[in-house]
Amino acid sequence: MSTDNAIRELVEKVTNAPGYTKAVGTKVESAEPGFVEMSLAKNDNLLQMNGFFHGGVVAGLADHAGGGAVTTAMPPGRFAVTVNLQVSYLAPAKGEKLIARARAIQVGSTIGVAHVDVASRSDGTETPCAVAIVTLRGVDFPAK
Amino acid sequence: MSTDNAIRELVEKVTNAPGYTKAVGTKVESAEPGFVEMSLAKNDNLLQMNGFFHGGVVAGLADHAGGGAVTTAMPPGRFAVTVNLQVSYLAPAKGEKLIARARAIQVGSTIGVAHVDVASRSDGTETPCAVAIVTLRGVDFPAK
Amino acid sequence: MSTDNAIRELVEKVTNAPGYTKAVGTKVESAEPGFVEMSLAKNDNLLQMNGFFHGGVVAGLADHAGGGAVTTAMPPGRFAVTVNLQVSYLAPAKGEKLIARARAIQVGSTIGVAHVDVASRSDGTETPCAVAIVTLRGVDFPAK
Amino acid sequence: MSTDNAIRELVEKVTNAPGYTKAVGTKVESAEPGFVEMSLAKNDNLLQMNGFFHGGVVAGLADHAGGGAVTTAMPPGRFAVTVNLQVSYLAPAKGEKLIARARAIQVGSTIGVAHVDVASRSDGTETPCAVAIVTLRGVDFPAK
Repeated sequence: MSTDNAIRELVEKVTNAPGYTKAVGTKVESAEPGFVEMSLAKNDNLLQMNGFFHGGVVAGLADHAGGGAVTTAMPPGRFAVTVNLQVSYLAPAKGEKLIARARAIQVGSTIGVAHVDVASRSDGTETPCAVAIVTLRGVDFPAK
Repeated sequence: MSTDNAIRELVEKVTNAPGYTKAVGTKVESAEPGFVEMSLAKNDNLLQMNGFFHGGVVAGLADHAGGGAVTTAMPPGRFAVTVNLQVSYLAPAKGEKLIARARAIQVGSTIGVAHVDVASRSDGTETPCAVAIVTLRGVDFPAK
Repeated sequence: MSTDNAIRELVEKVTNAPGYTKAVGTKVESAEPGFVEMSLAKNDNLLQMNGFFHGGVVAGLADHAGGGAVTTAMPPGRFAVTVNLQVSYLAPAKGEKLIARARAIQVGSTIGVAHVDVASRSDGTETPCAVAIVTLRGVDFPAK
Repeated sequence: MSTDNAIRELVEKVTNAPGYTKAVGTKVESAEPGFVEMSLAKNDNLLQMNGFFHGGVVAGLADHAGGGAVTTAMPPGRFAVTVNLQVSYLAPAKGEKLIARARAIQVGSTIGVAHVDVASRSDGTETPCAVAIVTLRGVDFPAK
């Protein structure tokens, strides 16, 4: 199994484990060392009162994608947990789908930082809706 | 109806409208001008893989509570939408319940800022798990 | 005078007005609508105890550059003041020069957001040292 | 020498070492484990074009105070360096003096977080002008 396959499997395993990311329907679009793309299809339980994706849902996707980007850039057996999440909302997330692209911009022995662009897609057109910076620290991967 | 009752009704109406905050079970514990307390009971769909509340869920509750604190401090007919959300995670949210207390620390003609303390509660003991600063801008309340 | 010249003159005028940005030696490298590049040469009064640029100096340059990027993207007569500044430090700023490149990523009627990359340069090589997101609101340009 | 004296001496030593904090005139008002208060008197080199303290100067004081609060809460020999700085500006810093009060709200084995209130003082009256959250990581104190 190639390294990239192993990385994608790891990201999918964490994303699809029982819990929040699985419950909301997070989909791993791509994963490689230091970069992941994830998406979330619109459904009634993810919206705010105007019918746009809720800011908390945008933040949650950004957080999860940022964690994936940094974890995949860390040595095997290490896992990144969020220390600080910063989200700037640029426009209402009006589309049918949220897409987050996260890139590790720094990975050190204890700290990693990811930059995340979030867009919403409607009829094939993407509109940026948020940008996030996620700061994480590395811990040992939880034993099974 | 007293002002405070009107404020609580507004916060509950927004929180219980169909969508994310209702779907996850957000409960309004108290609401007055410039301050709201909200809680979220643990359930399997809100957790990360270690069984703690997911960081995105913590962020979402902080965002919603911060919006409530600033909206209730604004003139009637105005509504606060998040521009920037910043969350620092202090400890794993291991408890049975998340509690967010949000206070408006600045409310101007266009911008408001809320400070939010988030704790998790277990067996009656609260442990701080996050602190957030939410920056919002005022818009006219959406017409029905 | 072309628009771009007018924009550069505005940015230089604000930067070189008596006060902090002039006192520390901020230099406008380039300015166009929605983008500015600024630099700061090392001197003893800008460092922390290890001889690197102080984090506050990095933050100040990012703030000022972000303000320039958003102001130059606003209609004439409007000026952007910082509401929220978020800086992630990626590496010590060890070089001889700090360089900030700020780009407006959202400019609306009340709010603008800039993304800023800060690098330090040594012997012609740049090393990223920080990334910042600056949220600003537009106000009328102060009358003379 | 009592512990508190040792702590104050450490904070003053770092603050008064040649460099930015000394150059701008940072004064240590008080220091104890997990809390520091610092001030900065107005002078022409610290202002923006309206005559208020520059946002970068506010950020720099918040950063330095936050670092002091976390460092003093760490075991001897450890030192906190900033990973992430978040500043929300609440009002123009119009006073004669800036005052930052920083409190460590979390100190772990690798990460510490400080909450900082910044006010400006004029004729004995303080007006809150910013609130900051500083995230830091602990490193070994640099050898002399």
